[in-house]
Amino acid sequence: MIKAGIIGATGYAGVELVRILLNHPFVELAAISSVSFEGKKISEIYPSLYGVYDETLSDGDTVIKKSDVVFASLPHGISQPLAKACLGAGKIFIDLGADFRLRDEDTYRKWYDGGFDDKTLHEKAVYGLPEIYAGSIKNAKLIANPGCYPTSAALALYPGLLMGVCEKTGIIIDSKSGATGAGRGLALNTHFAELNEGFSAYKAGVHRHSPEIEQTLSDIAGERISITFVPHLLPVNRGILTTVYAKNKGFSLSRIHEVYSDFYKDAAFVKVLNPGEYANIKNVRMTNMCHISLHLDEHTDTIIITSAIDNMVKGAAGQAVQNLNIVFGLPEDEGLKGTAPSF
Amino acid sequence: MIKAGIIGATGYAGVELVRILLNHPFVELAAISSVSFEGKKISEIYPSLYGVYDETLSDGDTVIKKSDVVFASLPHGISQPLAKACLGAGKIFIDLGADFRLRDEDTYRKWYDGGFDDKTLHEKAVYGLPEIYAGSIKNAKLIANPGCYPTSAALALYPGLLMGVCEKTGIIIDSKSGATGAGRGLALNTHFAELNEGFSAYKAGVHRHSPEIEQTLSDIAGERISITFVPHLLPVNRGILTTVYAKNKGFSLSRIHEVYSDFYKDAAFVKVLNPGEYANIKNVRMTNMCHISLHLDEHTDTIIITSAIDNMVKGAAGQAVQNLNIVFGLPEDEGLKGTAPSF
Amino acid sequence: MIKAGIIGATGYAGVELVRILLNHPFVELAAISSVSFEGKKISEIYPSLYGVYDETLSDGDTVIKKSDVVFASLPHGISQPLAKACLGAGKIFIDLGADFRLRDEDTYRKWYDGGFDDKTLHEKAVYGLPEIYAGSIKNAKLIANPGCYPTSAALALYPGLLMGVCEKTGIIIDSKSGATGAGRGLALNTHFAELNEGFSAYKAGVHRHSPEIEQTLSDIAGERISITFVPHLLPVNRGILTTVYAKNKGFSLSRIHEVYSDFYKDAAFVKVLNPGEYANIKNVRMTNMCHISLHLDEHTDTIIITSAIDNMVKGAAGQAVQNLNIVFGLPEDEGLKGTAPSF
Amino acid sequence: MIKAGIIGATGYAGVELVRILLNHPFVELAAISSVSFEGKKISEIYPSLYGVYDETLSDGDTVIKKSDVVFASLPHGISQPLAKACLGAGKIFIDLGADFRLRDEDTYRKWYDGGFDDKTLHEKAVYGLPEIYAGSIKNAKLIANPGCYPTSAALALYPGLLMGVCEKTGIIIDSKSGATGAGRGLALNTHFAELNEGFSAYKAGVHRHSPEIEQTLSDIAGERISITFVPHLLPVNRGILTTVYAKNKGFSLSRIHEVYSDFYKDAAFVKVLNPGEYANIKNVRMTNMCHISLHLDEHTDTIIITSAIDNMVKGAAGQAVQNLNIVFGLPEDEGLKGTAPSF
Repeated sequence: MIKAGIIGATGYAGVELVRILLNHPFVELAAISSVSFEGKKISEIYPSLYGVYDETLSDGDTVIKKSDVVFASLPHGISQPLAKACLGAGKIFIDLGADFRLRDEDTYRKWYDGGFDDKTLHEKAVYGLPEIYAGSIKNAKLIANPGCYPTSAALALYPGLLMGVCEKTGIIIDSKSGATGAGRGLALNTHFAELNEGFSAYKAGVHRHSPEIEQTLSDIAGERISITFVPHLLPVNRGILTTVYAKNKGFSLSRIHEVYSDFYKDAAFVKVLNPGEYANIKNVRMTNMCHISLHLDEHTDTIIITSAIDNMVKGAAGQAVQNLNIVFGLPEDEGLKGTAPSF
Repeated sequence: MIKAGIIGATGYAGVELVRILLNHPFVELAAISSVSFEGKKISEIYPSLYGVYDETLSDGDTVIKKSDVVFASLPHGISQPLAKACLGAGKIFIDLGADFRLRDEDTYRKWYDGGFDDKTLHEKAVYGLPEIYAGSIKNAKLIANPGCYPTSAALALYPGLLMGVCEKTGIIIDSKSGATGAGRGLALNTHFAELNEGFSAYKAGVHRHSPEIEQTLSDIAGERISITFVPHLLPVNRGILTTVYAKNKGFSLSRIHEVYSDFYKDAAFVKVLNPGEYANIKNVRMTNMCHISLHLDEHTDTIIITSAIDNMVKGAAGQAVQNLNIVFGLPEDEGLKGTAPSF
Repeated sequence: MIKAGIIGATGYAGVELVRILLNHPFVELAAISSVSFEGKKISEIYPSLYGVYDETLSDGDTVIKKSDVVFASLPHGISQPLAKACLGAGKIFIDLGADFRLRDEDTYRKWYDGGFDDKTLHEKAVYGLPEIYAGSIKNAKLIANPGCYPTSAALALYPGLLMGVCEKTGIIIDSKSGATGAGRGLALNTHFAELNEGFSAYKAGVHRHSPEIEQTLSDIAGERISITFVPHLLPVNRGILTTVYAKNKGFSLSRIHEVYSDFYKDAAFVKVLNPGEYANIKNVRMTNMCHISLHLDEHTDTIIITSAIDNMVKGAAGQAVQNLNIVFGLPEDEGLKGTAPSF
Repeated sequence: MIKAGIIGATGYAGVELVRILLNHPFVELAAISSVSFEGKKISEIYPSLYGVYDETLSDGDTVIKKSDVVFASLPHGISQPLAKACLGAGKIFIDLGADFRLRDEDTYRKWYDGGFDDKTLHEKAVYGLPEIYAGSIKNAKLIANPGCYPTSAALALYPGLLMGVCEKTGIIIDSKSGATGAGRGLALNTHFAELNEGFSAYKAGVHRHSPEIEQTLSDIAGERISITFVPHLLPVNRGILTTVYAKNKGFSLSRIHEVYSDFYKDAAFVKVLNPGEYANIKNVRMTNMCHISLHLDEHTDTIIITSAIDNMVKGAAGQAVQNLNIVFGLPEDEGLKGTAPSF
């Protein structure tokens, strides 16, 4: 049994990790921690775990000591010393935060406050989007688990950019996320009566996930890609739907569909829907799946790609476990096979 | 592997059975049927199953032939011939509908149209609420899976009535159910813009689950119990919260809590919350759990019990699988151990 | 034009008062205040008012000085000095908080922290539930606007208790309120991802509105009435549905319906629905209406009354304006005639 | 008093017209009709009107006879004979359906089944988007009230295209609509448990509102404009948020903001939000307002415009009343001044 620990287990991504790891046949949840709730049982914070998992929340050091692999789900800036401690102790570190996602320190400085404390550490970090970087993930000790929006955008554009189906310029990414993406911290925009029956964009063109999306798309395209990214906040708990607009390079919809279907035919977690079907966040809830649907506006020759993921699973905790599986040589979908609820 | 089949697999309870059985380690889903969608893949109806379970929907006869145990999730009145066919062929029949729940034919006639086609069949039927009737379920061939409201009400009142904590008269049961309880059939009261931001009672005092609740409570109390039952429709997908009001027989809240906690201490699926906590439908979603919280209005000496279940799991498909486990000698919670999502 | 001011205009009840008073043909909104947002425009806090009402928030003293009638929508304990100042300056004071609702100081002390600073002030206070106390309201200078739950419960029971339709003992009041009832202050139970798809009771038997409900019902019945009251939190923005259970004194449903219909036939804001119909919060949203539906469980002889109000209108701001109309000799429904949205 | 009638009063747009016209000081609601519910009171269909407006639904002929101005809210294809009858009888006809929105018959044939029965009738039709076509509306007898999506898109792009702020090619329009846009007719995609917690695109690039949007934008630009339009279905009752992406022609965000603010400074119903603010559907609910927010992605030089309207008010019934006001020489906002609810 792999001993896994979670630092920051009481945030939404943290407790989703708990849910998934409790169901994983080859993982034992060795320790969990929380700064805010240290000493309490996690089931006091989340009564859904009452009688199921009543473990007491400890501190980060204990988690590192007891675990073979440490997941951290923390605000940005805190993971760097933890990663160092883990790697020093010979543990695998999977960071669900943003500290190791961007390879370029200047870009990091521009979008986050603070820089790279230890560059060698950042050089070891592998960006944990398995559909694209599985090769590097296999041997990684330090994995930067991708952001939720970047996951949905990269999977939507990966075959299109790589296979030359769409143009590399003028890509528009219009994303809509459920409320858990904003976390468990109280804020007016996620106060029930404010968000319910409401809908708006936020951080249009200036969201921190923009450079992360561009880094991955540039890797795929083999050249510097710039995109326009606008996130919106949906009055639902879970899910991201991303609608991508890209200029067609002259293909028919059926050919585009064929390219995508072939490309992802062996992907455990990406399903290309049939022509005429639409990706919907409700069909991937609680699973690590990404549904992709393809559409073509013929009169402007624009490819429209929509991708749906559960922001807390494929967009966070599930993908982190997928990375664990790869690192430990398990089947990629171990512990992640649960069927989606249909409602 | 136990071969299980589902007749009526495309209704909400049917597809929830699919979800649960696909995750059951000792069950193989042998066949599924649907009158409305025969010949189609179930994943065309529910895209959440796309690439996960793409089985074609057949007919009832095929399901019976291929299965050791047949679940039927159908409108009332249709299960009787199916039950006969199953028992004749030596199969177990677990009915999620209402045909075999009421033991008294006159009561059945009063609340449903039609009577008992074959009384010997009804004599064989066992009411499948395992926390109360596990002894009879073990040897049953024909199980009447309880209604969702009756499950939530009976579990809330079982220790109270059996142990003499509350009076047997004047019990009020005020229940609130999510929209899936009304099924997948289109109706104005479950049209999105009508139900969203709305809330009302329905069938106050005249819901068909009233006699079913009374049958079970009378079994518990050892005498004829009459209750007042009012259901309400909640603008959520899943869950029933039932608030029960019963006259206290002189106990302190801590004593009542002790009685309930002791009573259910070995129950796999019933958790009595700590004093001061409240049962909430969100904490039992997608699980077979029933959360119970206990409260006392001292100035009127009224016990207030709230119970929360997922109407589609403990209130339907999960309980049906719990019954399967009991009949086949498996641990009661086999295939039902999935941790609840926390949001 | 009557000059009205609002102290505490940026809470949900306060801004609902703004909405209603802006539409009132005989009222001029003279000044508004907020401790948290003094100096800002209210439309910065509520963009729904942008370009419609961009008034700057001042302080309480300014509001009192500029107004003929002062509404206060504040946490309990703060209204007493304001009331004194208003009455001293010859202004009408309408308090949407709890400070003056309970006539008995011991009861107040038991449920709230603090007592009556000035008893003569409390003797002048009139409980502003117009359907019951219109006679006293007419000449009042200090009006205690009722709580939302007490309004819904009292209107449901008023004819039944007064006309001797139901027993005076054993009354159960099961209420369900939308999220705005918990205010605009951030809290975990009204964080979107916690409340959405959730539902539970809270403060069962121990909510501060219990003694307020009992005070009014005792006035109606002419004797001390004790009730059991349990509130629940609904995942909707607006509305309270209250389900009342009371023992029938031997009447048929049609007779009960007749009594209620006759009783409320001239009430501007109470509508008794036809037999078979159910009160629904969606049908009274944004209006001062109370819908009442009547049901009878014949086999236990229990009368079931459901009442629906908008918690922020008839349960707060609308009722406060109804009180203003009565005090100033205007038609009771002046400024409150707006038709409900149907969705 | 202007005598107004509504043909198709029981659809969502129809009953919203009822709500608005009942509050209009210079309009008398002379007659209403419904094919499905003829002979019933409208308050039986919509209990929100119970005791407020209990008028009986008649037929189309009666409505035409009794009215000076007839609103029709019907499926496409039915309005043409009604328009003819109205104009023949000297009545004003305001069509909320699609029959008269497209000026080009070939385009109409391509997107709708059927053609123009009477071309002279279509030549008389004026497209009723007052912010753009007020001059023609003034003298119109036959007004084609715009679609909801086209209204939100045209108002977002009007100043930008007219003043040369953005390029005329490559415009992307990503819209998200509440469920009432799909009407009151029952359908699986608006069944509560299907839409709640779900979100997806539909008719990507092939929605009937595409040619209507292009017709208006081409009018503005003075040349043929092609756009890419993708609608999505939101789990809320009301509102459309449209996010527009257009190439900047070299302006700073503050200059773009200035252009828009100046342009709309006298518009009764269009508010340009301050820099940094975001248009949100919750802030325009129940009103005829359109909120517009402006953003600039500097690194790709893309202007991002978001516009929020209530799809049933500015997107349907409210705009129809705005048109009535213009035709009858009333202030444009007569009967449309109601303040938005803040939640």
